[in-house]
Amino acid sequence: MKDSYCDVLIIGAGPAGVMCANALAREGISVRVVDKRPENIPAGQADGIQPRTIEVLHSYGLADKLLAEGAHLNMMAYYNPTPDGKGIERTSRAPDVNAPTTRYQYKITLNQTAIEDLFLNSMRQNGLHVERPVIPTNLKISDDETVLNDSKAYPVEVTLHRLSGPETCTMNDTSSHTNVVDPTVELAADNELDERVHAKYVLGADGAHSWVRNQLGIKLEGEHTKHIWAVVDCVPETNFPDIRNRTAIHSNNGSCMIIPREGDLVRLYIQLADAEDLANGGRLDKSLVTPDRIMNVAKRSMYPYKIEFPHEPIWWTVYIISQRVATQFSVKERVFIAGDACHTHSPKAGLGMNASMNDTHNLAWKLIHVLRGWAFPKLLETYDLERKKFAQDLINFDRKLADMFSGKAVTADNMDGVSHEEFQALLRTEGGFTAGTGIQYQPSIITQPGSTTSGSGILVVGQRVPPQVILRVADCRPFEIQDLLKSDAKWKLLFFVGDCKLEKQIALVNAVGEHLQSPSSFLKRYTPKEAAADAVFLILWIARTQKEVADYTDVPKGLRSHWSTIYTDDVAVDGKKGGDAYENYGIGHAGGVAAVRPDGYVGYVGSLKEVLDGHLDEYFSGFMFSSL
Amino acid sequence: MKDSYCDVLIIGAGPAGVMCANALAREGISVRVVDKRPENIPAGQADGIQPRTIEVLHSYGLADKLLAEGAHLNMMAYYNPTPDGKGIERTSRAPDVNAPTTRYQYKITLNQTAIEDLFLNSMRQNGLHVERPVIPTNLKISDDETVLNDSKAYPVEVTLHRLSGPETCTMNDTSSHTNVVDPTVELAADNELDERVHAKYVLGADGAHSWVRNQLGIKLEGEHTKHIWAVVDCVPETNFPDIRNRTAIHSNNGSCMIIPREGDLVRLYIQLADAEDLANGGRLDKSLVTPDRIMNVAKRSMYPYKIEFPHEPIWWTVYIISQRVATQFSVKERVFIAGDACHTHSPKAGLGMNASMNDTHNLAWKLIHVLRGWAFPKLLETYDLERKKFAQDLINFDRKLADMFSGKAVTADNMDGVSHEEFQALLRTEGGFTAGTGIQYQPSIITQPGSTTSGSGILVVGQRVPPQVILRVADCRPFEIQDLLKSDAKWKLLFFVGDCKLEKQIALVNAVGEHLQSPSSFLKRYTPKEAAADAVFLILWIARTQKEVADYTDVPKGLRSHWSTIYTDDVAVDGKKGGDAYENYGIGHAGGVAAVRPDGYVGYVGSLKEVLDGHLDEYFSGFMFSSL
Repeated sequence: MKDSYCDVLIIGAGPAGVMCANALAREGISVRVVDKRPENIPAGQADGIQPRTIEVLHSYGLADKLLAEGAHLNMMAYYNPTPDGKGIERTSRAPDVNAPTTRYQYKITLNQTAIEDLFLNSMRQNGLHVERPVIPTNLKISDDETVLNDSKAYPVEVTLHRLSGPETCTMNDTSSHTNVVDPTVELAADNELDERVHAKYVLGADGAHSWVRNQLGIKLEGEHTKHIWAVVDCVPETNFPDIRNRTAIHSNNGSCMIIPREGDLVRLYIQLADAEDLANGGRLDKSLVTPDRIMNVAKRSMYPYKIEFPHEPIWWTVYIISQRVATQFSVKERVFIAGDACHTHSPKAGLGMNASMNDTHNLAWKLIHVLRGWAFPKLLETYDLERKKFAQDLINFDRKLADMFSGKAVTADNMDGVSHEEFQALLRTEGGFTAGTGIQYQPSIITQPGSTTSGSGILVVGQRVPPQVILRVADCRPFEIQDLLKSDAKWKLLFFVGDCKLEKQIALVNAVGEHLQSPSSFLKRYTPKEAAADAVFLILWIARTQKEVADYTDVPKGLRSHWSTIYTDDVAVDGKKGGDAYENYGIGHAGGVAAVRPDGYVGYVGSLKEVLDGHLDEYFSGFMFSSL
Repeated sequence: MKDSYCDVLIIGAGPAGVMCANALAREGISVRVVDKRPENIPAGQADGIQPRTIEVLHSYGLADKLLAEGAHLNMMAYYNPTPDGKGIERTSRAPDVNAPTTRYQYKITLNQTAIEDLFLNSMRQNGLHVERPVIPTNLKISDDETVLNDSKAYPVEVTLHRLSGPETCTMNDTSSHTNVVDPTVELAADNELDERVHAKYVLGADGAHSWVRNQLGIKLEGEHTKHIWAVVDCVPETNFPDIRNRTAIHSNNGSCMIIPREGDLVRLYIQLADAEDLANGGRLDKSLVTPDRIMNVAKRSMYPYKIEFPHEPIWWTVYIISQRVATQFSVKERVFIAGDACHTHSPKAGLGMNASMNDTHNLAWKLIHVLRGWAFPKLLETYDLERKKFAQDLINFDRKLADMFSGKAVTADNMDGVSHEEFQALLRTEGGFTAGTGIQYQPSIITQPGSTTSGSGILVVGQRVPPQVILRVADCRPFEIQDLLKSDAKWKLLFFVGDCKLEKQIALVNAVGEHLQSPSSFLKRYTPKEAAADAVFLILWIARTQKEVADYTDVPKGLRSHWSTIYTDDVAVDGKKGGDAYENYGIGHAGGVAAVRPDGYVGYVGSLKEVLDGHLDEYFSGFMFSSL
C-alpha cells in the first residue's frame, strides 16, 4: 500500500469540509480533501445563508456570486387560520432579520451545490481539487505522547480507498436532516486503490452519519422528535401573494414554511401531521411517501389560495426532526469533527449549513497558527470549547422553534395552540442568534474580557466585529471596517488613536509606536524574524480627525506600513455614511485598542495606556510562540 | 480583392469604438472592428471616468471590475502660494463631485488599457474580436438616393488593408491631447492583404487625427492655445499629504494637477510655463523635453513638500492644449464619427474618454433600432443633434477651466491672478457637467417635453434617469432603479400607478392595462408580431403602497410579465433607503408615466390620463415603424 504525507486531511467535501479546505489552501497549507460522492450533489439539501455567514464568505472574497445569484429574503410573512378555521389569512409581515448590527439585513437562499462551488472554484485557483469518490477505511491516532507533542510528527494514519466502477457510492440523499440510511459500500479487494495517509491533523466533515465520528467513538446526545416533515423544491403556479417571501403558515390543515429560492424556484417545508405511521424509531420509510401526497398537503395548507405544480419537483424528501450534539468535537486535538457530524437539528431556521461552515471557519486559522509554529497547540482546544457551546445553544433554540412551528395555531377551538405573538416573539428575541451575529464566545486564552474600555458599545470581546464605515485618510474613501478584516490568517490590531491633530494624542501615538518597536512588544516577539513586518499582525490606525484636515502623514512613517493603513472616523463626502464608529463601538476620545482574531472575532479590548503597560503583550503571550 | 458585407464597420478600437462594438455585438448585430495598432496600448492616455460614465458602464454590466481596480477620487484638495510666495500650502479640501443626483459620489481613475479591456472581454463573450493591425485605405458613400433609402442596401464601401511585418504601425502615442504626428504608414502592394467591405453603416472612431473625418472632409472648428503641459505617470516618494487626492496646485513655480491612480500610481499634470519655445504652430517638438526636466518642474511646484521619483516614469508626454469640435458628426446618416475624431480639448477635467464613450452609447441603440427595422432612419439624425451640442458645451467649459488653471494664482504681487474662490466656484457650478449627470438633450422626435407632470422633480425629459431606491413588491428587495434600466436596446416604460390598494388607482391601472392591450397602443403597434411581448418595451409598475400590505398580485396577471416587474416606493426593511422616488421625481399621488430611452435618458413624461388619451402612442409614432 502506498504511503503519503500531508499536514491536514479533510474527509468530506460538504460545506464544513470545503470551508476548511479553502481556508487552508489559500494560506499554502499542505491539505487534501476526499469525498465519497463521485460528484458534487446536483440539487436539494441545505440552501439558507444567514447574515453572519455572508459576512464570513465576504471575508474570504466569496460573497459576490452568492449575493448575485441567490434569492434575498428581506421580509417574513405570517399566516394563521381565518376566524372560521377553514383557510388561512395573512396576520402580518415583518423583516426577516432582527439583528440591528447586521451588515446584511437579509438572508440568502441558493442551492448547496452553488454554495460549495464558491469554495471549489477558489480551491482550484490554489491548486486543490477534491479527490472523489474516495472513502476512509481505517483511522488510527498515535498514543505515543512524544509523537503527539512533536509539531513535526504525523500522528494520524488514515487508510483511503478509491471507489471504482460498480462499487461507486451514488448518494441520492446525504442531507443532514434526512434519516435515510447510507447506501452500504462494498469494498473492492484491489489494494492499488488503497493509500495510507499520514497526517498531522484530520478533519471529519463527513455528515450526520459521520464515519470519522463513529471511528472515534464519539456519541451524539439528544433525541429524535415525533415531528415528520416533507421538503420539496419546485416552481409552483400560485396566486399566493407571499410566494417570494419567507412565509410561516400555521394552518389547521398542517403547518407549512415557504422559502423562496434563486430564480422562480420555491422550497416548501410541509408538515405531515397525519404521518406518524411512516416513522419507526427515528428511521423513516420514505417509500411510503410520494411527491403527490406532499403537494396535496401543501394545497390544503394554503387554502383558500391556489397553488399548482405544473412541473415535476426538482428535489424532495421526508424527514423526522432530530436534535443531537456530539459529546466532543475533537480527540487529542489531532482529529476534529465539524458540521453535521457534530450537530443535527431541524432545517427550518436555515442554520445547519451556517453552523457547519462557521465550525471550520473557527478551526482553520487555529490549525494554520499551530502548523506555522506561531501558536501553542493548546490553541486548538478552543475549537471544542467555542463551537460545542454554540451547537448546544443551537439545539436549544431549535427545540423551541420546531415545537412551536410544528404545533397547531391557537384558535377558538384550540386555546392551547401556538399564538402568533408567541411565535413572532421567539424569532425576534432570537434575532441575533438566527442572524449568526449574536454569537458570543466564552472567555479563554484567546478571548479575554476585563478591560475598562470594553462593554459600553457594540465592540464586544468574544463577538464578531460589527460593521461600521470609516474613511481612509489619504483618499477619503469610505470603507466598511469588515472589508479590512479579511480571513487571511492574520491578526488585525485596531488602534483607535483619537484626534491626531491634538498634541496629546500624537504624543500617545508616538509612545505606542515606540512600545510596538521595542523588543518586548508582541509585534516583535511573535512576528517570525524572517517574515514580513505584517505577516502575523496587521496594524490599522483609526483616528478621529475631520476628513478636511486629517493627513495620513499624521501617523509617523515608521509606524505605517502603507498609506492605506490610516483611517478616520468621519462622515463620507456623500454625507450619508460613517462618523459613528467611536460612538457605536464605545471608544472614548482617548482611544483604545482592539485585537481582532483572524476569524473576525474580538479577542481583546484595552486602552492605549494598557498597551504601554504591556497588557496586549501579555494577552498574546498566552498562546503565541516567541520567535526571539 | 475580396468583397465582404457587414451591417456596421467600426474603424478604431479606442473607448468610442469598443463602446459601440460591444453594444452592437451583445444585441447580435453584424459588426466588425478594425484598428491600426498591432495591440492594445500598454500604458498612458486617458484614465478618468466620471460618475455618469460609471452609471453607463454599470448599465452594460461592466462596472464591477472598474470599481474594484480603479482609484476612487472622493476629495479634491486645493493648494495655493504661501503668503511669502515661495512655496505652497493647502487652502481647502472639498468633495471632488458636486452633483447631488449622482449615484457614485466619486470619480474613478484607471489606465485606458484596463478600461478598454472591460469592453474587449465582453465582446469576446459575444464572439467579436478586434482585427488588427488593419487600416482603411479608401471610403466611398453611395450618392444614389435609392440605395441610401434602402434599409437592406450596403451604401458604404471601405477598403481595408491588413498591415504586416515591417509596415506594422507602432503607435507610441495616439492620445487625444498630444499633437505628435502619426507615424507615416507605407502600404504594401500585396493585394491579398486588402479587402473591400460593404457596410450599411460605418463609424469612424479613429482618434484626434481621424482618417475617416479627413476622408469625409469634415473640418474641426477651434484653435490651439498657448498652454504647454506635461503629463507623467509615476510612483513617487513624497511627504505631500494629498498625493492620494485629486489636487490642484496653483504655484508661483507653475501649476500642477495630481491625479491618483490605481495602486500607488500617480499621474501628474505639470505646466511647462517657460516652454513656449517648444511649440511651433500647434506642433510640439517632444525631443526637447526629458522626464527629468518635467519632474524638476514638479519638485519646484510642490515646494516645500518633497517629492522624489525613485522609479522611471511609466509613461509621459507633453502637449499643447487644443480645443476643437468637428463641424458635423455624420454624413448622410451612413458614416458617423465619434470620440476624439469629433472633439479635442484639455485632459484636466478628465472628460475626454467619457465624452467619447458617451458619444457611441448615444449612437448604438439608434443603429440597433434602425437596423432591426423598429425605427425610421431619421432617428439617426438625433446623434449629431445631441452629441455635437454636448461637445460644444464641453469645449466652452474646457476653455474656462484650462485658462483658469494655466493662469497664475492671485498673490500680493499679482492681483489679476486666478483666485481660489473663482477656481473652486467654477468647479462647483459646473459640477453636474463634469460629473456627466447634468447633460440635457434638446427637444427632438425622441425627446419631448411639455407634459404637465414633468419638471417638478429630478426626473426631467432629456436627462438621464437619476438614481432612486424602490422595493420589489414580491420579495421586498430594494433595487436601485438604474439597475432596472439596463442597456439592452429596449425602452423602459415606468408606470407610476400610486397606491394600488385604493379602488380609484386600481381602476386606473386596469384602464391603462386595457389601453396597452388595444391595437392602437404603442405596445401592440411597435412590438414586432413574432417577437416576445417585452422585446421592444419593458413595462415596470411602480406603486406607492406600503411594503407591509403591497402585493404583486395587485397588478392584474395579464399586465405583469413576471412578478419581478412590480415595485413600490417605500422604505426598505433596513430603514435606511427608499421611499422617496415619487417625491424626488416629482410624481403626484395620481401617478404618471415615463418613457426611458434605451440609453437611460428620459424621452417622455406624462400623466396616466394622457396615456389613455393616446399621448404615449403619439410620441412613439414619431419615429417607430408600425408592425401592424
